[in-house]
Amino acid sequence: MINTKAVLASRPEGMVKESDFKIETESIRDIGEGEILIQVKTLSLDPALRGWMNAGTTYIKGVEIGAVMRCFGAGEIIDSKHSDFQTGEFVTGLLGAQSFCISDGKGLAKCDLEKGPLSYHLGVLGMPGMTAYFGLLEKGKPQSGDTVFISGAAGIVGSTVGQIAKIKACTVVGTAGSDEKCKYLIDECGFDFAINYKKEDVDQALKKHCPDGIHIFYDNVGGPLLDTALLNLAKGARVVICGAISQYNKNPNYGPHNYMKIVTARGYITGIIVFDFIQEYPKAIDDISSWLSSGQMKTKEHFVEGIDAFPNALLMLFTGDNFGKLLLNI
Amino acid sequence: MINTKAVLASRPEGMVKESDFKIETESIRDIGEGEILIQVKTLSLDPALRGWMNAGTTYIKGVEIGAVMRCFGAGEIIDSKHSDFQTGEFVTGLLGAQSFCISDGKGLAKCDLEKGPLSYHLGVLGMPGMTAYFGLLEKGKPQSGDTVFISGAAGIVGSTVGQIAKIKACTVVGTAGSDEKCKYLIDECGFDFAINYKKEDVDQALKKHCPDGIHIFYDNVGGPLLDTALLNLAKGARVVICGAISQYNKNPNYGPHNYMKIVTARGYITGIIVFDFIQEYPKAIDDISSWLSSGQMKTKEHFVEGIDAFPNALLMLFTGDNFGKLLLNI
Repeated sequence: MINTKAVLASRPEGMVKESDFKIETESIRDIGEGEILIQVKTLSLDPALRGWMNAGTTYIKGVEIGAVMRCFGAGEIIDSKHSDFQTGEFVTGLLGAQSFCISDGKGLAKCDLEKGPLSYHLGVLGMPGMTAYFGLLEKGKPQSGDTVFISGAAGIVGSTVGQIAKIKACTVVGTAGSDEKCKYLIDECGFDFAINYKKEDVDQALKKHCPDGIHIFYDNVGGPLLDTALLNLAKGARVVICGAISQYNKNPNYGPHNYMKIVTARGYITGIIVFDFIQEYPKAIDDISSWLSSGQMKTKEHFVEGIDAFPNALLMLFTGDNFGKLLLNI
Repeated sequence: MINTKAVLASRPEGMVKESDFKIETESIRDIGEGEILIQVKTLSLDPALRGWMNAGTTYIKGVEIGAVMRCFGAGEIIDSKHSDFQTGEFVTGLLGAQSFCISDGKGLAKCDLEKGPLSYHLGVLGMPGMTAYFGLLEKGKPQSGDTVFISGAAGIVGSTVGQIAKIKACTVVGTAGSDEKCKYLIDECGFDFAINYKKEDVDQALKKHCPDGIHIFYDNVGGPLLDTALLNLAKGARVVICGAISQYNKNPNYGPHNYMKIVTARGYITGIIVFDFIQEYPKAIDDISSWLSSGQMKTKEHFVEGIDAFPNALLMLFTGDNFGKLLLNI
């Protein structure tokens, strides 16, 4: 059997480009004691991958040049010499951007397909969903009646944050980059207001939609939008930094000039690292799964096909050309 | 009797300049029922004044053009038609940059000269001391063994923060702009390490002096120094923004590029607005006064003479030419 994989060929300086990856093939070795062989079904394209392409260590080490690109995936166990894993079980984890993965089982999570289809375990029931859930509930600490503002709201994290905030009886405002995405936020996700940041003056729109200021800002985007949000904080505001997708390809990145607004707002700026909540994932999965079943929550997926499409699919994340959780079927 | 006052003549674009103020005189009217007349003895020159020179409202309204410059001061009551205030009592408050002040008593604090001399009530026992005390203890939440890093450490706020942190059994590191100030921090204030930011590589010095990272960063300075501190945070770090004296005269100001380091540090960025703790000042004054008496805390004052010197004295704050709490004797 042949494994096809996307390996990191070079570290991008600015925007990630197709040539930063090489597609390689190799024959798959036999698994040893304590190992399993996973046939990867679906890869998850996440903004975090851009950071992992850099040298050095942040919360996790950068990918080595020549190594298979680190990537979340979901797959089926097709061979096992590991007592905890059986052939036919489905798992998610850092399977890598490849069609087959040999694993010692560490860091894998088994998927309960009764909670949702396999691909959901990479999205609303997976890392992005967990990031939304714990970032909003544990870091943002929403109270009934709060105004929650979300940048990059049409993404999988943003749209999940907004829907959880609605369930928690908040007023929810989000930005997105097209009228179609804004319509989706209102019509499908139940947002109170959606701002097309490419067409509207976000500061004016926030002053209109958040007359009492922003109690929670959940930031996926960074850049000038973060500065605009900082201008509109309510007293006691919580700014939860999840990502800065507008900045990952920029060097230097944009530093928020209005950071001292957090002082006068008597608030705080913090962040969410989802791995810190790994022990609590089961409760979050149960909650989200039940919200999906009851129709209180919706989720949208955008599929691309084939491992060869991996480099260009990653680019779509930064151009905003995807609409829904970006996934790659192998 | 004649009142001499510094009025705001123009709003500075960048660095404050002498011509932004005009010195005017006026005869003092008789006080009415419920009013007191205060002879101002000492004015306090604080970085906050720069913000008050701008138009618009932050946590307090900007000073109007032509109005006496808002300024903390300490003085003696020389006439009173107010039942709560007696001739001969000493008070501090926003007396304005002038030699006499007529007040209705609102916002004034009486000075207990047994706690320290009158000028101390504008410094270590006044707003700067309160800012240090509550910013460190309530916002920074120091634990024994924490490493506390302070920018602008030789200022009245910074040196007080550092000495309280030592009393709380922390390792204390500070930056200052001259070898003389660094020597003062070590020899007089008991800091563990002092970094002359004009001569040393602060990032390298922090990596050497804070091998386990910074648990609390108390920032008085902002700018690139904030970015350097963000690179060196320990897990769970608290960044307390008190001021940004390096940036008050800059437009645009410097936005911290490394703000996302607070995410990977699992920490938070917050700020201190001292007025929020006004109910708790008496305990802080008692604590600081007892630390001064026991010799656990020291403080340094830098006096300039006469209201005419007000504009240039304010400039000294931003050039760093003062050494110790900057005060103006009238």
